[in-house]
Amino acid sequence: MTTARFDAGLAKLREIHGQYGPAVLDRLDDVAPDLKRWVIEFAFGEIYSRPQLDIKSRQIATLAALVCLHHSGLEIKAHIRGALNAGCTREHVVEVVLQMAIYAGFPAAISAMDSVRETFAELDAGVEKPQSAL
Amino acid sequence: MTTARFDAGLAKLREIHGQYGPAVLDRLDDVAPDLKRWVIEFAFGEIYSRPQLDIKSRQIATLAALVCLHHSGLEIKAHIRGALNAGCTREHVVEVVLQMAIYAGFPAAISAMDSVRETFAELDAGVEKPQSAL
Amino acid sequence: MTTARFDAGLAKLREIHGQYGPAVLDRLDDVAPDLKRWVIEFAFGEIYSRPQLDIKSRQIATLAALVCLHHSGLEIKAHIRGALNAGCTREHVVEVVLQMAIYAGFPAAISAMDSVRETFAELDAGVEKPQSAL
Amino acid sequence: MTTARFDAGLAKLREIHGQYGPAVLDRLDDVAPDLKRWVIEFAFGEIYSRPQLDIKSRQIATLAALVCLHHSGLEIKAHIRGALNAGCTREHVVEVVLQMAIYAGFPAAISAMDSVRETFAELDAGVEKPQSAL
Amino acid sequence: MTTARFDAGLAKLREIHGQYGPAVLDRLDDVAPDLKRWVIEFAFGEIYSRPQLDIKSRQIATLAALVCLHHSGLEIKAHIRGALNAGCTREHVVEVVLQMAIYAGFPAAISAMDSVRETFAELDAGVEKPQSAL
Amino acid sequence: MTTARFDAGLAKLREIHGQYGPAVLDRLDDVAPDLKRWVIEFAFGEIYSRPQLDIKSRQIATLAALVCLHHSGLEIKAHIRGALNAGCTREHVVEVVLQMAIYAGFPAAISAMDSVRETFAELDAGVEKPQSAL
Repeated sequence: MTTARFDAGLAKLREIHGQYGPAVLDRLDDVAPDLKRWVIEFAFGEIYSRPQLDIKSRQIATLAALVCLHHSGLEIKAHIRGALNAGCTREHVVEVVLQMAIYAGFPAAISAMDSVRETFAELDAGVEKPQSAL
Repeated sequence: MTTARFDAGLAKLREIHGQYGPAVLDRLDDVAPDLKRWVIEFAFGEIYSRPQLDIKSRQIATLAALVCLHHSGLEIKAHIRGALNAGCTREHVVEVVLQMAIYAGFPAAISAMDSVRETFAELDAGVEKPQSAL
Repeated sequence: MTTARFDAGLAKLREIHGQYGPAVLDRLDDVAPDLKRWVIEFAFGEIYSRPQLDIKSRQIATLAALVCLHHSGLEIKAHIRGALNAGCTREHVVEVVLQMAIYAGFPAAISAMDSVRETFAELDAGVEKPQSAL
Repeated sequence: MTTARFDAGLAKLREIHGQYGPAVLDRLDDVAPDLKRWVIEFAFGEIYSRPQLDIKSRQIATLAALVCLHHSGLEIKAHIRGALNAGCTREHVVEVVLQMAIYAGFPAAISAMDSVRETFAELDAGVEKPQSAL
Repeated sequence: MTTARFDAGLAKLREIHGQYGPAVLDRLDDVAPDLKRWVIEFAFGEIYSRPQLDIKSRQIATLAALVCLHHSGLEIKAHIRGALNAGCTREHVVEVVLQMAIYAGFPAAISAMDSVRETFAELDAGVEKPQSAL
Repeated sequence: MTTARFDAGLAKLREIHGQYGPAVLDRLDDVAPDLKRWVIEFAFGEIYSRPQLDIKSRQIATLAALVCLHHSGLEIKAHIRGALNAGCTREHVVEVVLQMAIYAGFPAAISAMDSVRETFAELDAGVEKPQSAL
């Protein structure tokens, strides 16, 4: 029994993050299923589904945001994959992170580059889902 | 006696922010002229001048960053103008700020929208440079 | 043509923030009406409407959050009024901000106390809505 | 040779965090024993001991703060236990973290939920002290 | 009826910030006198009074902290005066803020430089206390 | 084929961080060599090389910054070593981190103290380079 917003959100989530994309949220199932539902309904069903901005530009904005907010690990690695799925080249991803040295400082950019390198290596090895830094 | 990096940076700064763009940095002249020089040489001469990512995408990344870092006033207003100069529509600008509600929280997005509204009003009134919120 | 979530959210917003509470969001009408709608539908219609936690506790959590995120002015002043409406005494409000000295540092707590003092003065003067610091 | 503030603080720390609560601070013994002393004297002996706000409300404020400041691991896990000791249900804890999606953004709430889930599992398994994420 | 810690703190506060230094805290008198007391007892009476690090180095650390935490106005302007009182030259103050461009990003450093410039101008004009940006 | 700024930066980096200091940046070689170059040319070749402030004071400012920005692991551990190389005693390092409890909050100071303790232990064990927390 899902809503139209949920269904649209799940389709958008799969479009951006691939078949295994929603799996990143599965760890919410036990403790906070409503948070998972809101990510799908609100973030993907409402915001990412809006036609006013293309998905590639949205992923560029999100990558910049995650570097500035110091999010690392699964969170940024999932969105690096999303950016690549949305039409960014690897060079584009690196470039957005580089640019954040101006705004978030050099250590934030250097630290995010660890997630970039790990993601590229996982993709080269055919790993289907972003892996936790552990 | 400027360097090639400075000249390239100044040209890029004018390309993105217009004839009056560098004026935002003039307040550094007395107390920290080297900081002004580095913004031109490093931020604009090195990073914004790189061909690996188009300027429109760079301005989208910067807008997202400034919302997440809670920068307001002149700083974000200058980059809203920069985004428009780089080919973003007003709708694109609004959309990037909206999307940041997911990452930086609603109050950060709402607060940044004040700078968006003020900038649009200044542009409609033909004001040449971003005005301080005061 | 509003949704049930919107109507529930608007009722909850009025319950917490009073008759003039929604007015704080009116400045979004021109530039980002969807952001206003989401605040009402999502923040108030979904989260603040959940029965799992009482409104007084929610306002305490929000006050703590706003001090830690360095939000000031209208944003924190509206929620100080909200906390008082939800059953907090003025002493409770002061106490939550004081406690944040441990987590957000002393300057953040001192700065937030400016908004506390201004709000109490505005209420004593019978001012109906939180006033911008300007 | 302790002060009255220290003794009051240690009693309050044990009241909130249990018999093993102070153990989280033992890692400060070698390198910064004064920092441990201040946490006990100032944070617990002065602030948490004040009668102006009940401990349950204080723990709700602290949980909100830690999510917004992106503190994870031992720090937030100790305070989740503290909130439960202070009268919060597990549902209350989840709810405070959920609500922070509005203010700190979705990734911060999702990330904090990892600490919630781990803490509940550790409690179910009878683990006496919060465990490091490693 | 003050404590030894309070008296030591007040003396240290006056030593660093001058005769008018404590006045910055007077706005706390009505709404949160205990917060003012803790700043004096804890921050100045305990930490700034420790002999393990000289006051000039402490003020350099504090200036760096305030730029990184985006504190502005009275807070950073009081500590710029404090750094000068502690033996820093104006050039040292500028240099610490410049260096933060690496860590806190360029906009944070540029914004802090506004407070540096205003403080130097106020000192040149013989203004006894830091003035609010308003 | 390096520039004078690069050579000056590399010499300064080695002076502050020791023979193995540059190795911390080697992980950038594959994915973002330009970021490594900028750290050397800009951060070390331009800012740390300026004569206006001594290196010991610069390292104190940087330590304060890293605590406030919640950087941990390799980043802060490298700069703790840098501070010691620049003439700080271990007591000075501890003292700067302690002082940040006032500005960045107690949990940030406590968490940074983990990196202090690990670094001291690594130095006592003769470990040549800062080790990742893993």
